[in-house]
Amino acid sequence: MVPTSIDVNADAGESFGRWRLGDEAGLFAFVSSANIACGHHAGDPSTLRAAVRNARDAGIAVGAHPGYDDKAGFGRRALAMSISETVDSVVYQVGALAAIAESEDVRLRHVKPHGALMGAICGDPELAVEVAAGLRSAGFELPLMMAPTTALTAVRTAGHPVIPENAVDLDFTDDGINVIEPRPMAKDPDRIAETAVTVARGRAVTVSGRSIEMPVRSVCVHGDRPNAVPIAAAVNRALTAAGFAIRPAEPWV
Amino acid sequence: MVPTSIDVNADAGESFGRWRLGDEAGLFAFVSSANIACGHHAGDPSTLRAAVRNARDAGIAVGAHPGYDDKAGFGRRALAMSISETVDSVVYQVGALAAIAESEDVRLRHVKPHGALMGAICGDPELAVEVAAGLRSAGFELPLMMAPTTALTAVRTAGHPVIPENAVDLDFTDDGINVIEPRPMAKDPDRIAETAVTVARGRAVTVSGRSIEMPVRSVCVHGDRPNAVPIAAAVNRALTAAGFAIRPAEPWV
Amino acid sequence: MVPTSIDVNADAGESFGRWRLGDEAGLFAFVSSANIACGHHAGDPSTLRAAVRNARDAGIAVGAHPGYDDKAGFGRRALAMSISETVDSVVYQVGALAAIAESEDVRLRHVKPHGALMGAICGDPELAVEVAAGLRSAGFELPLMMAPTTALTAVRTAGHPVIPENAVDLDFTDDGINVIEPRPMAKDPDRIAETAVTVARGRAVTVSGRSIEMPVRSVCVHGDRPNAVPIAAAVNRALTAAGFAIRPAEPWV
Amino acid sequence: MVPTSIDVNADAGESFGRWRLGDEAGLFAFVSSANIACGHHAGDPSTLRAAVRNARDAGIAVGAHPGYDDKAGFGRRALAMSISETVDSVVYQVGALAAIAESEDVRLRHVKPHGALMGAICGDPELAVEVAAGLRSAGFELPLMMAPTTALTAVRTAGHPVIPENAVDLDFTDDGINVIEPRPMAKDPDRIAETAVTVARGRAVTVSGRSIEMPVRSVCVHGDRPNAVPIAAAVNRALTAAGFAIRPAEPWV
Repeated sequence: MVPTSIDVNADAGESFGRWRLGDEAGLFAFVSSANIACGHHAGDPSTLRAAVRNARDAGIAVGAHPGYDDKAGFGRRALAMSISETVDSVVYQVGALAAIAESEDVRLRHVKPHGALMGAICGDPELAVEVAAGLRSAGFELPLMMAPTTALTAVRTAGHPVIPENAVDLDFTDDGINVIEPRPMAKDPDRIAETAVTVARGRAVTVSGRSIEMPVRSVCVHGDRPNAVPIAAAVNRALTAAGFAIRPAEPWV
Repeated sequence: MVPTSIDVNADAGESFGRWRLGDEAGLFAFVSSANIACGHHAGDPSTLRAAVRNARDAGIAVGAHPGYDDKAGFGRRALAMSISETVDSVVYQVGALAAIAESEDVRLRHVKPHGALMGAICGDPELAVEVAAGLRSAGFELPLMMAPTTALTAVRTAGHPVIPENAVDLDFTDDGINVIEPRPMAKDPDRIAETAVTVARGRAVTVSGRSIEMPVRSVCVHGDRPNAVPIAAAVNRALTAAGFAIRPAEPWV
Repeated sequence: MVPTSIDVNADAGESFGRWRLGDEAGLFAFVSSANIACGHHAGDPSTLRAAVRNARDAGIAVGAHPGYDDKAGFGRRALAMSISETVDSVVYQVGALAAIAESEDVRLRHVKPHGALMGAICGDPELAVEVAAGLRSAGFELPLMMAPTTALTAVRTAGHPVIPENAVDLDFTDDGINVIEPRPMAKDPDRIAETAVTVARGRAVTVSGRSIEMPVRSVCVHGDRPNAVPIAAAVNRALTAAGFAIRPAEPWV
Repeated sequence: MVPTSIDVNADAGESFGRWRLGDEAGLFAFVSSANIACGHHAGDPSTLRAAVRNARDAGIAVGAHPGYDDKAGFGRRALAMSISETVDSVVYQVGALAAIAESEDVRLRHVKPHGALMGAICGDPELAVEVAAGLRSAGFELPLMMAPTTALTAVRTAGHPVIPENAVDLDFTDDGINVIEPRPMAKDPDRIAETAVTVARGRAVTVSGRSIEMPVRSVCVHGDRPNAVPIAAAVNRALTAAGFAIRPAEPWV
């Protein structure tokens, strides 16, 4: 049975000081969840606060979006951190954002790793399970939002809630993992909207042309694409037309 | 009336990656509170976790020690941040450390600003009050540990708990504020121990030779001084000999 | 006598990784010199290389634009570095950019400090003289481009070439120094163009309404203002109409 | 034929602000070349200047030691930079150090990549050749000091001078590449000295017990090992006793 609701998530809070990225106000009109950067791959504390406020004012769910501490690479370059370094870094970042959010009367709803950290976690079940355990030990019983991989299954089996998701404005490998672009370019909104509906219905077509299962409860559109707002609008319109209610996902426990 | 107990606090968690600073295990045997760096002036997430564990194992109180995001200057160089930038930065840092501490079953007991940030807060009552308000808004009803200044009085008047403190291994200006050393040198433990007793009794002698009131509930010894452990031991011994119980301070509300 | 030529300079290379700032290609059509960031307040190495190439292809002069190592504040917040730290930092940054430039067959023509570092140098003749001496000792006999202040006079008296300049899209204090904006807003191109002609003719009106001497050989327009290109175009047009040839300045020795 | 001279090199300038690492003055008495950090994996500009001065005063050769821009990981964690990003980063860093060195009347003699960057360059001939070409294009006709690998051969074949080297205080893989330790521990000086003599004679024993050719002209001892100075002294003594003159290597062209 096809789910009748779907979450649309977007990354946010990814400016840094003088450097602005994305049109949050525009984007938040079309999505149901915002993943807010935590100061390592992007986002200074004041940028985080502004993003939390924008999300709260738009009435959408707020999650943490931790990444590698590599601003020059925007967290999109693999960095060989150990498991314990990664766990400590994620707890640090989520704690920092949770405090900013609390001071705006906002409670975090999920944690979605960013860029190359997402790649590392999706590719390493042991790392994924340890990150989830680290979050719980810090009092963050928050679902981990990540691609539907064996790593996600491992996290769920370990007793941690998950929200399976994938980006619909990126290609998929045959393993169902997104292919990261170093610098997102403008793309055709209609084609992405079509992919969004396919994925919301539980399937995807990979770079090699295979059709695979894609059992997600959330679809991502990237906020740093030049035409991110028109893409989000098209995705929202197409999912609504296909009968989906767009709202934050219930975690899969 | 002279208080019969006094807190001895020391900064900790001030290593950074490969670079180690201070002998925490040695130091924690002689102090009652540790102020743990929060990743901006010093301390990566794994260093913070190790410091929290060391403090917990030593049975001493743990506080947050936020600073300017200037590792090259170790947070000891003034940085012209706006009030709102400063508040957001402090909330971010305290939240990050609180999460690491929570995952080690440790609750923060106080917040003590570091270096040039301490100087800015002690010198600007409006900033001090805003920082305290920012902490409360984030759920951190933690006493602000700072020098007994008009800024401290302003924070207390605004309804936020405080712990008046000063370092006894640094000189005092006539305004009762510590003179920061760019790079701490070894100093005579006995002379510092003598200062500690004088300060614990509520007075201090300034750089100009004046004797001033110094109404503190905590005295600081710096952990990054080459002979920090012998100094802490001498201070502990002298305070004990003078009849003080060394334990975490009750906040002044 | 009014000079018959004037330099128009603009900052460039101020992107950072994923974050883009300014339209260099557009801007470089209207200016005669580019001050390229050196990696501390802005600019990763690949951004610097792209900016050097853009300037070379536009046929304009290239200078170094060192700043404080404070990317979160874009080098616009005062940072209490010592004189020797500042000298070492400037030599480091200019050397780094000079190497990138050399590998693009470009020789640096001047050094212009950025933001709060410019403010510090213009306000402290001793610092200005030491920075100039540091540059010479490293083989950079490059004119220091800075506001016409007593600090500039001190540098020149010490035997180092200078290019007096000021920004015409910022206000002036009565001391003839620019008032830094934390985040540049769009401004009226015609009004700035008018200021440019006044300044090119050697005078300026300050925030308090006084008319003061402004003996500059270069005028700056900021590349990170939203309408930077129309402003540069208007300045170029107005100066040309007023009879000025727009070209790199001869240093004042 | 066994060479009659050998270079002993050590990394230096790897302090960072408040954090000190290594005993340069002690170390420099026993080595013939210093590889000085360039501000990315370690070393602020003032630390670099101090290291250059120390090396000059000790009469030893100075080279550049660029690394990944990952201070928290001390440049010892692999970072997925592109080839062009890596080239630009190396040129930037070498240029920065060259300027600091020039201002101390010191000319650089070689470039030795650090940590994970060394690993990347030794493992990727295309990257190695591009880095060498980038250095030449910036006017740095400096030999690349690196492990005797196919990458080194590629660099030499491309017409760039090389100095084959390896660390004698680390283990060797069967490919003749050093196994990086995350955090160097104290080791037995005599055992390392014995390895140094073996390697200086052109052979090494790998972790799997194989004896392989190791045609180096320089051997490295790490300055951040707790007993680095006794190790360097033992290596110096053993090589001298074995008949080697310890002096900077002639590049292999």
